[in-house]
Amino acid sequence: MLESTRNFEGDLDELEALTQPGREADLSVFLELLHPADVAEFLARIDSSKALLVVDRIGHERAAEAISELDHDDQERLFTLLEPKKLTAIVGELETDDATDLIQEMDEATRQQVLAGLPVDDRKEVQQLLSYEPDTAGGLMQTELVAVPIESTVSAALEHIREKAEEVDIMSIFVVDDLGRYAGHLALQNLVVARPPTRIEQVMEPKVVEVTANMDQEEVARIFDRYSLVELGVVDQEGVLIGRITADDVHEVFLEEAEEDVLKLAGTTAEPEVIYSNRIFGIVGQRLPWLISTFFAGLLAMWILNQASMVFHTKVILLTFVPVITGMSGNVGTQSAMIMIQGMATGHIARENLGWVISRDLTVASIMALTCGVIVFAIVWAWLGNPALGGCVAIALAFSMVTASALGSTEPPVLKRFGIDPAIAAGPLITSINDVSGVLIYTMVSIAFLDLLP
Amino acid sequence: MLESTRNFEGDLDELEALTQPGREADLSVFLELLHPADVAEFLARIDSSKALLVVDRIGHERAAEAISELDHDDQERLFTLLEPKKLTAIVGELETDDATDLIQEMDEATRQQVLAGLPVDDRKEVQQLLSYEPDTAGGLMQTELVAVPIESTVSAALEHIREKAEEVDIMSIFVVDDLGRYAGHLALQNLVVARPPTRIEQVMEPKVVEVTANMDQEEVARIFDRYSLVELGVVDQEGVLIGRITADDVHEVFLEEAEEDVLKLAGTTAEPEVIYSNRIFGIVGQRLPWLISTFFAGLLAMWILNQASMVFHTKVILLTFVPVITGMSGNVGTQSAMIMIQGMATGHIARENLGWVISRDLTVASIMALTCGVIVFAIVWAWLGNPALGGCVAIALAFSMVTASALGSTEPPVLKRFGIDPAIAAGPLITSINDVSGVLIYTMVSIAFLDLLP
Repeated sequence: MLESTRNFEGDLDELEALTQPGREADLSVFLELLHPADVAEFLARIDSSKALLVVDRIGHERAAEAISELDHDDQERLFTLLEPKKLTAIVGELETDDATDLIQEMDEATRQQVLAGLPVDDRKEVQQLLSYEPDTAGGLMQTELVAVPIESTVSAALEHIREKAEEVDIMSIFVVDDLGRYAGHLALQNLVVARPPTRIEQVMEPKVVEVTANMDQEEVARIFDRYSLVELGVVDQEGVLIGRITADDVHEVFLEEAEEDVLKLAGTTAEPEVIYSNRIFGIVGQRLPWLISTFFAGLLAMWILNQASMVFHTKVILLTFVPVITGMSGNVGTQSAMIMIQGMATGHIARENLGWVISRDLTVASIMALTCGVIVFAIVWAWLGNPALGGCVAIALAFSMVTASALGSTEPPVLKRFGIDPAIAAGPLITSINDVSGVLIYTMVSIAFLDLLP
Repeated sequence: MLESTRNFEGDLDELEALTQPGREADLSVFLELLHPADVAEFLARIDSSKALLVVDRIGHERAAEAISELDHDDQERLFTLLEPKKLTAIVGELETDDATDLIQEMDEATRQQVLAGLPVDDRKEVQQLLSYEPDTAGGLMQTELVAVPIESTVSAALEHIREKAEEVDIMSIFVVDDLGRYAGHLALQNLVVARPPTRIEQVMEPKVVEVTANMDQEEVARIFDRYSLVELGVVDQEGVLIGRITADDVHEVFLEEAEEDVLKLAGTTAEPEVIYSNRIFGIVGQRLPWLISTFFAGLLAMWILNQASMVFHTKVILLTFVPVITGMSGNVGTQSAMIMIQGMATGHIARENLGWVISRDLTVASIMALTCGVIVFAIVWAWLGNPALGGCVAIALAFSMVTASALGSTEPPVLKRFGIDPAIAAGPLITSINDVSGVLIYTMVSIAFLDLLP
């Protein structure tokens, strides 16, 4: 039994010791007790030559399970080390969706060698799966499943399961009509409980949703979430059942989408496989374009400040407050935008309550703006002994905070209406807009205060 | 069959029409064809009085399933409308974990009434579950499960399943020793396939991890993810099996944690139940404290700019470039911090490669800084006809961008080392630090350039 707080550092030392020549038998015993996920953790952490030794000591099936748990980078590293023959044997042990994912990570030459080495049936299925876009239902599904005709009986279905149980993980059986079209499904539990001569049609659940192979994986994930599914059949254009998607595959979609969202909020083009690679110029290409908006916003702010030279070149102290104004409007606008984006993504905010949410956000922003305005007025008056200067900064700060919040909370729904992903806008874009609006408001308030200032 | 792109607007109109007096029979037929998740969608969107009518027309079991799919707010709204007797009947249909979640949302008086109305066994189990913190394994688990003694046989286990199948969703059976301690489990599929007289011990899988009721839900979620589990037994301090957690409960934990992370990145105290409530001052309390750091950073930047009055009060144009400097360092620092936080959360970045990742990030930042420096130099020279001013702004911009990136990428691992959640630091905090560092660098570079400037 593994403790959940497994001490990997200690185990890693032990594993290192066991990879010395002459200790092969001990290594095998050590590895046999590990869960494939833990073997994967070791494979990721040890030298390539030792990783190769570990893969040699465990069977192809366990090697396959462990390798499919590895990151893409670690997988690639192992692929370059393993002989194609061994690699083919390992891939042959995987379910078709995992096999397809692995083969997709291989370079063209290795891919052809591995495909050629697979049994004809497996090869055809994998080639079919390779033909779907990775981010569609077809890219997620596996072809292994148990399907029975709608007119068969419970006892025939149980017999079918006994034949297939070795190669397929079965949670439920799929039911198809005489043309192979997806008609429904039946949880294993209900099959076990039903009387053997019962016709499947009488005990099955009709299908709830039809998912075609080209459906976007986000849509698939939403369906799983909405109907709390454990698995789902995938059909072709004619409705014929061609594969199934299981809940664990969808779980990865959720993690992937969440990761991409955070990277978008960070102001990048949100391709984790580039951002976390060692392709320096690739990363620059993902980040720099988003900074350019900030850059030109900064130059625009500079131009505005110079246009108002009759204020700012005579009352220079006003200019030194610009970081307070831009910093506060940038951050309050980001808060409002991110709260709106997250609320829209999780369903807290929908079209029905959008107006109410925006007005609530404006109320919150007004209270915060008033608070900050009073504080800055008191500080400036006390510090610089000038109530008019304090009033000018306070009023500009409060107005720019409320404006920033209004822009921040309205931007995401507006972008969404135009089919632009709102997450992309929350990062540098909203800060840039709010820098400019903050400077503009500050300039106008300063002009209004000009005669009162010292 | 429901289309995945269900037209809710149209259906909603139909449902509204069916809630008119005299159309009760049609309403029942309409509701019967809906999945509970879709009934929940309707309940959330229609008037309270009509929602009550819908709940009346569907059976207690389907009402229970639909209500457990609702948001907390919508649940509360319904609870105030339903009579305690009806509410008790509905709660009685739920699995213990869902029942506990619902009861937790009720006010004290309703809770006592509902608990008193439950059958004794159910009440005891729910009261036990209510005693666990909601964000622990105990708070996630349900008490419904099928457990068989380790010395029993496959046929006895199948018999046991037939008895329990009505009340429990069974994916696997749990195996316990003679003291009731969790020993292992067996997928339903393998039970179906095994020969009836086989002893359970011979076909079961030994348990992989021991999860106690007080384990944090994030830890539970990590275990599910790591070992690709569909369900997991929970034990008490003596190792006795007391409940199980299923994959769909854990899925909600992931969504919850992801939501909290985004709200932290937005610079809030990350309590979605407050942020998306209508408690205006509660929301202010979650947002304002994080803005205060920005506020004082802005005042500090102002103080620095005023200290260097011999530069900035004579060469006023320098001050108008401050938004460019602070905007760029704020955003490049946020990018670096968020990429680091996300990488640490997903495992792209671990202690082993931390140094390498930070140096790669510095390289990327240097290239971006050089690019922006060259552009700003060219623009300022061309626009204002002054190469020295261009050089001053360009050098300050480049240095402050590299510094901001270095601070952004080192801050998350440092905070983590001190036990502070890095996500909390990526929002206003990193922007504030970088505003100050940017202004400081700009001031120093400007002083160095003083004699060259016009």
